[in-house]
Amino acid sequence: MNSKLQWLRNTMASLDMQGLIISNPVNIKYLTGIDAEGTLLLTRKDNIFITDGRYIEHVHSILTLYDEIIVYDINDVSKDDYENFFMFCENVGFEEYYVTYADYKELIRKYKINNLVETEHIIERQRMIKDKDEISNIEKACEITDNCFKYLLTYIKPGMTEKQIAEEIEEYYKQRTDGLAFDTIVLSGENTSMPHGVPSDRKIQEQDIITIDMGCKVNGYCSDMTRTIFVGSVAEYIKPIYDLVLKNQVQTLEEMKDGESTRLLTKMVENDFKLNGYDLIHSLGHGVGMEIHEAPYINYRTDTQLKENMVVTDEPGIYIPGKFGVRIEDTVQITKFGCISLTKSEKNYIII
Amino acid sequence: MNSKLQWLRNTMASLDMQGLIISNPVNIKYLTGIDAEGTLLLTRKDNIFITDGRYIEHVHSILTLYDEIIVYDINDVSKDDYENFFMFCENVGFEEYYVTYADYKELIRKYKINNLVETEHIIERQRMIKDKDEISNIEKACEITDNCFKYLLTYIKPGMTEKQIAEEIEEYYKQRTDGLAFDTIVLSGENTSMPHGVPSDRKIQEQDIITIDMGCKVNGYCSDMTRTIFVGSVAEYIKPIYDLVLKNQVQTLEEMKDGESTRLLTKMVENDFKLNGYDLIHSLGHGVGMEIHEAPYINYRTDTQLKENMVVTDEPGIYIPGKFGVRIEDTVQITKFGCISLTKSEKNYIII
Repeated sequence: MNSKLQWLRNTMASLDMQGLIISNPVNIKYLTGIDAEGTLLLTRKDNIFITDGRYIEHVHSILTLYDEIIVYDINDVSKDDYENFFMFCENVGFEEYYVTYADYKELIRKYKINNLVETEHIIERQRMIKDKDEISNIEKACEITDNCFKYLLTYIKPGMTEKQIAEEIEEYYKQRTDGLAFDTIVLSGENTSMPHGVPSDRKIQEQDIITIDMGCKVNGYCSDMTRTIFVGSVAEYIKPIYDLVLKNQVQTLEEMKDGESTRLLTKMVENDFKLNGYDLIHSLGHGVGMEIHEAPYINYRTDTQLKENMVVTDEPGIYIPGKFGVRIEDTVQITKFGCISLTKSEKNYIII
Repeated sequence: MNSKLQWLRNTMASLDMQGLIISNPVNIKYLTGIDAEGTLLLTRKDNIFITDGRYIEHVHSILTLYDEIIVYDINDVSKDDYENFFMFCENVGFEEYYVTYADYKELIRKYKINNLVETEHIIERQRMIKDKDEISNIEKACEITDNCFKYLLTYIKPGMTEKQIAEEIEEYYKQRTDGLAFDTIVLSGENTSMPHGVPSDRKIQEQDIITIDMGCKVNGYCSDMTRTIFVGSVAEYIKPIYDLVLKNQVQTLEEMKDGESTRLLTKMVENDFKLNGYDLIHSLGHGVGMEIHEAPYINYRTDTQLKENMVVTDEPGIYIPGKFGVRIEDTVQITKFGCISLTKSEKNYIII
């Protein structure tokens, strides 16, 4: 059995949980390497993956005896099988943040479980702490993102459209990685005031401000970086806001370390923004791994202690509706005494 | 208020439902045109969309007074507001097939609803029947898919990789549509035995069998077509299976009409496959619309009566593990007395 499944089984034992039903495909891939529709059951003795005819061949081609995972075709699982899987289990966990209300009712009916218990992100919390291989994959994705950004600084010219630049980024990633980690954001001029805008046919103009939010996947792991850049020069009315965002982005980096509270970090930035008359309208950051947005979430709604080998983003932004916006974002690895920025592109005024 | 919201309100009235909480973003887009994170509430009197700072500007830019939708920033909604929204409602519906168990508990807590009731796909069932505009968009997506396939027949040459062909399809769609409706499947040789395989670096060879499953989006609506084609000639051992799949695909088309049972259609194909020693290992078809897979699902697990102006696929397939597979699929519109194939590409032996 691999170390991730072993870790999860130890956590289950400590929670007095004798069985677990895993439905989230990202969690299944994390634990087993299997990238297919199906359900992973951890029973008292066995690890069981139930899938269907479309995936059986693929799943068998991935697994080895060492994995200790029994594969079932869903058509061969009888009513009795379902009822026997968790027969001697006191508590069986399910993923209440992934399973729909309708599926929850179906789990109880099908498996005849007495005590189906909420697991409070048991696997997502395990996923927050990255191992060596995971960090190495994220490092590579970040390095390629830095290289792509460097290339963009020579590529972008007035007259090009936002879409065209986004497509060039996609092409760059496609040739070197598993592809995009998320839909690339390229916004210019007044469009930059929309934090989640979509690249349009607007053409880059002289004196434009441009926001680029980009990331790729390497062996299934993501990178995430945003830079706000300028054509020709930086307008005087933008400088104070750029400086304020950058100051807070750097200060957050300086504070991020093992033990630090994510809520406190958010409050620090929020307060400094408010002091200057602006709001922090989105999260300060989020975990990055197999998913582009995963735990921990860095905002004022939740509080998590940062831990060594978490990988998170640091991305404050200020947006003036109808005028412009500035966001600066790095992907960083938390260490015992600070953090390491895995994306390393220039952050002072970048003028092309 | 638009006709889709009006239709939904009429259905609610007939179900004695005074309020409805809509969480599924596809359903929200269908009903309002809004493509943003948030929740749509239908209260006794109002249509309310609650979103956050990232989307407020975008949402306001889409809506007009005629829409009769009130937009709230989630940060401005107080505890009392939540409790007042459904104050005089007897029954409030929620989407039990979309809302997670954790969110379900949160809805009850936040809105203080006495009777939160399951709605059994109330909106998905409305979405099954397409209106004129929706069908026109799907028709366009299907026409472009036919044109793309025609182009592919001249483009594909031995030596090209599966990935390369898939990328050419993506490029073709990108230049003419909103892009892919799903990740294109291009498989060749023994890879065709995996119904949901992913394009690889395998090169097309002389005498190869190739399966292409492709579709694009036009104004948010999908097309879906599969063809199995041959390089040079059709191997004799493949012909009986190709003929059997095609025969069943055409027979299904002939039976599809208003009133027909989806389970019966599936049984018909399944029985003929079994008679010849093969299994039908995936659904015979599925609805197509804003989502590439949506209701109705055509398989033996559920039963739906086909209705005029449903748009569904007809896609039987046979797969011989490790050897080859054949699938043939069209997107079709159900009419009173039959069906119209919206994808029209050749289906007899296609040899390049």
